Amino acid sequence: MTHLTVPDDLVHHGPGGRILLFVLDGLGGLPRASDGRTELEAARTPNLDALAEESSLGLHNPVAPGVTPGSGPAHLALFGYDPVGFQVGRGALSALGVGFELRPGDLALRLNLATLDGEGQVVDRRAGRPSDAEAGAVVDRLREGIRLRNERVKFFLFPEKEHRVVLIFRGVRLGDKVRETDPQEVGVPPLEARALRPDPDPASETTAAIFRDFLEQARALLAEEPVMNGLLARGFARYEGFPSIEGRFGLRGMAHARYPMYRGVARLVGMEISGAPDSDEGAVELLEEHFEAHDFHFLHYKAPDSRGEDGDFDGKVAAIEVADTWIPRLRALNPDVLIVTGDHSTPAAMRVHSWHPVPLLLQSRWARPTGAAFHERACRTGALGTVEARHIMSLALAHAGRLEKFGA
Amino acid sequence: MTHLTVPDDLVHHGPGGRILLFVLDGLGGLPRASDGRTELEAARTPNLDALAEESSLGLHNPVAPGVTPGSGPAHLALFGYDPVGFQVGRGALSALGVGFELRPGDLALRLNLATLDGEGQVVDRRAGRPSDAEAGAVVDRLREGIRLRNERVKFFLFPEKEHRVVLIFRGVRLGDKVRETDPQEVGVPPLEARALRPDPDPASETTAAIFRDFLEQARALLAEEPVMNGLLARGFARYEGFPSIEGRFGLRGMAHARYPMYRGVARLVGMEISGAPDSDEGAVELLEEHFEAHDFHFLHYKAPDSRGEDGDFDGKVAAIEVADTWIPRLRALNPDVLIVTGDHSTPAAMRVHSWHPVPLLLQSRWARPTGAAFHERACRTGALGTVEARHIMSLALAHAGRLEKFGA
Repeated sequence: MTHLTVPDDLVHHGPGGRILLFVLDGLGGLPRASDGRTELEAARTPNLDALAEESSLGLHNPVAPGVTPGSGPAHLALFGYDPVGFQVGRGALSALGVGFELRPGDLALRLNLATLDGEGQVVDRRAGRPSDAEAGAVVDRLREGIRLRNERVKFFLFPEKEHRVVLIFRGVRLGDKVRETDPQEVGVPPLEARALRPDPDPASETTAAIFRDFLEQARALLAEEPVMNGLLARGFARYEGFPSIEGRFGLRGMAHARYPMYRGVARLVGMEISGAPDSDEGAVELLEEHFEAHDFHFLHYKAPDSRGEDGDFDGKVAAIEVADTWIPRLRALNPDVLIVTGDHSTPAAMRVHSWHPVPLLLQSRWARPTGAAFHERACRTGALGTVEARHIMSLALAHAGRLEKFGA
Repeated sequence: MTHLTVPDDLVHHGPGGRILLFVLDGLGGLPRASDGRTELEAARTPNLDALAEESSLGLHNPVAPGVTPGSGPAHLALFGYDPVGFQVGRGALSALGVGFELRPGDLALRLNLATLDGEGQVVDRRAGRPSDAEAGAVVDRLREGIRLRNERVKFFLFPEKEHRVVLIFRGVRLGDKVRETDPQEVGVPPLEARALRPDPDPASETTAAIFRDFLEQARALLAEEPVMNGLLARGFARYEGFPSIEGRFGLRGMAHARYPMYRGVARLVGMEISGAPDSDEGAVELLEEHFEAHDFHFLHYKAPDSRGEDGDFDGKVAAIEVADTWIPRLRALNPDVLIVTGDHSTPAAMRVHSWHPVPLLLQSRWARPTGAAFHERACRTGALGTVEARHIMSLALAHAGRLEKFGA
């Protein structure tokens, strides 16, 4: 046990209460000018407000005060993983995002499609932001055309979005101490792919050599492309494998999420995936269907974040009101611990993820309720105080009767 | 200075204000159904409420959110010791609990009196939970009958409570990487006492050999006992010695506590002990008697925890109301910093220690008061916020003018 993680060694690995974690992505917000209300304060949420009367409230900092998290670390923290100690490289996160099943030892990297001029100098680091379809066609040609010289190595290549591509190598010992080749400016050639100095390690030399082979063949295949004729590497990450929530917390977990990225992060910590629903409500239905068979359920709802990133205050309010209608269905499942929170804030006023503390609600028979409202202001004076997100799993386990006493 | 401890290197080792820490054991609670009030909210505490008007309030997490502490780590945290970095083994805590003066290098272990059958198999791991008197008689026979073969080693043996016994070895280099002999089940013999594998260290081999000698002689002495004829080792702990609060914080401290366990933990960090009062109020009288001669006083009051563990809501309320009557006497001593808090929560509704944040009051001329009430709800919106208990000593030192500025 350290201050950096949930106290795994206090976990009681026998039977215990069932935990349901409902994440409204990007839940936290900022006040609008007209009446000083945040999105959650403006939303009509009778079911969440009634739930608050039986819950402990608080706020959480996803990583640390002032730190804006990406979706990967924000969810890892909610799952009880210190997001600083357990980092997912950008490449690995992208691979998870496209639904690829990473295995320990895989080397994942993020590529940009780019435009090079006749002298091999970078003209556009994002190849004019191609459409997904345009990028997909180029990726297909690379996938079919490239045969790596090292026959023990397999590669997997996926378009992510616009100019962003994910490449995974598998099969030999591969290091990720490799320099990124994106020069971060135009008018210069891409940097050479090589192991980081000083003291390059042999496994990273291997990665660099395989990637140079890949690049050389790609260059030839794309020589006639007018725009998408180059590749820039942005982030090498060897995927090490994470300890599972079953091993750490004795929880058999299942994720219910419409978007692949969130299923990916859940899979990273060993949760099962209930399916690939094609609507938000489909995820709720999958939760209902599978509730009895697992100890821990993660239900993810993307819309509040999406509307926040659109800068659509009213749209985010409406998205939250939709979530409110599901609360009676979640309560009907009768979890021992029901947590409603966000992974981070996405204020419509900012149109991006932010660092602001996120509303947190924890219902259990051992709660200390403070009133009948769930929003930033009510949470600020709640019984849980302001905690770091990585402690939320400790709180869930404690309220579920799954943690032993520390010391005599 | 690290994030894990009080900033010792900022401590001003000259004269400074006097600090009084009053611990109401198990103070924090949970709401009762009838009116939603916690024990502290239900209690009539006019003196604490008046004190709150001149104090900063807050809540503290004894170890970390969701973590329920034992009494040892909970008090160490209040004394400014990171409870994760400074762990006291169960044996050492038991030795302190019976008032034994541990010295650095001592090896303490917890034993259970147990019942073995004719074939040496465990029949009852607690020997039918003997009375203290029955166990005491057996312990006396062992103490008088055993002569260790290694004449450089002394042993000390004490009954703790019912079947629990404490054994201390002293005199040679003794390791504590020794396997516990309690098999945790019946119908099998006790495990053999041996140093932990792999890589047993010589000092732990020594401990194991001495303990085997002890066990062999004990077995012979207890051969005719029908019930208490076996011993099971549960937790070896070499006592390393803790840095003192005088060395770390420049505080000459004194503890006033009715129960030996709490005097023991105070002694562990170098406090003097004022006496062994036989009533709760006796501890207050000892405090009054010795107040001028020390910089830091720790007054311990057990009753709220005991009534909480009984599940006696009204009894806990009454215990808190008794403490309230002492507040004018504590204020009359005129400490520069007066802290009133608990070591952890013991909600009557749960009948055990819990993880819930604990009310915290700090009176000083530099306080930021927020109102005339002291209970969970008032503390939740107090000026101190929710802190980890290990930071309370920093707050005390700061308010007492005993901490320098950090950085220029």
